[in-house]
Amino acid sequence: MNTNSPVQQIIKQVISSWVGQSKVVTDLFTLYEDNHYQNEVAPGRNRGVYLLGHLISASDGMIPLLGFGERLYPEFVQLFSSNPDRSFELPSVEELKEKWTNLNKLLSDNFDKMQAEDWLDRHTNVSPEDFAVQPERNKLSILLGRTNHISYHSGQLIFLKKKEVLPL
Amino acid sequence: MNTNSPVQQIIKQVISSWVGQSKVVTDLFTLYEDNHYQNEVAPGRNRGVYLLGHLISASDGMIPLLGFGERLYPEFVQLFSSNPDRSFELPSVEELKEKWTNLNKLLSDNFDKMQAEDWLDRHTNVSPEDFAVQPERNKLSILLGRTNHISYHSGQLIFLKKKEVLPL
Repeated sequence: MNTNSPVQQIIKQVISSWVGQSKVVTDLFTLYEDNHYQNEVAPGRNRGVYLLGHLISASDGMIPLLGFGERLYPEFVQLFSSNPDRSFELPSVEELKEKWTNLNKLLSDNFDKMQAEDWLDRHTNVSPEDFAVQPERNKLSILLGRTNHISYHSGQLIFLKKKEVLPL
Repeated sequence: MNTNSPVQQIIKQVISSWVGQSKVVTDLFTLYEDNHYQNEVAPGRNRGVYLLGHLISASDGMIPLLGFGERLYPEFVQLFSSNPDRSFELPSVEELKEKWTNLNKLLSDNFDKMQAEDWLDRHTNVSPEDFAVQPERNKLSILLGRTNHISYHSGQLIFLKKKEVLPL
């Protein structure tokens, strides 16, 4: 039975969409030995390991934007959001996978504590004045955007799948 | 000023997320001459033209699922959702771009006519009995899923961008 209010039901589904897309990435990184993710997703493109760091940095950015606290891995902003692949020494795949897991756990725990209506509040990167005329700049917009961002890079990471099963 | 109810505000944003992701694809297909989209997004992967057909088929599928009517291009299911690239003769890029535009217009027009609460109704592929215990199998879930699907393939189509600007 549906015991959720419409707002609760919708928010639950938007969160579930984010959880699902994050899990696609988690699952992709459990398929092969760590070494495999040192490959480029396509010739001349980013390596799997770099894209995982990039996704960690993007998800980590939700912590301050949604008012949960400070980033867990602030050093990743410079590395994975400002610099291209191969311009610095990357952490190991093992380390990145652990950070990705920790981060998703922290985010999920915080999402669980939010009321559905909290998602309609402004995120921390918009002023109350701007928010008054742009109500769409709320916390929900961050989650929707980051979910699409994960899907976007999943479409690239899938190219690391070996060809026994040809992905779309 | 925000004059929307919470449900209206959230639905508006979810639709806007779909519109934005569809537009990423539209914009990518305006960058170069049609011939460029005959290229594979990466060696041995699908061609741009195939992925556009695939995305048309996926978006077209929303018409019956959301109760708007019949698919505009039913022949695309077999072509672009059941068969891999290079197994059949593809429509031209010009034709596909026109179909993509028509389809997005029809979908947007129908979205505009919906009440926010309509998105919480079951989609046509779930029975009333199943929906009673799985309220998340509503129309909104279709839109969220298709939006992620567009983002996923956008992450691949971006590889068709010439290297003057290196995409992430």
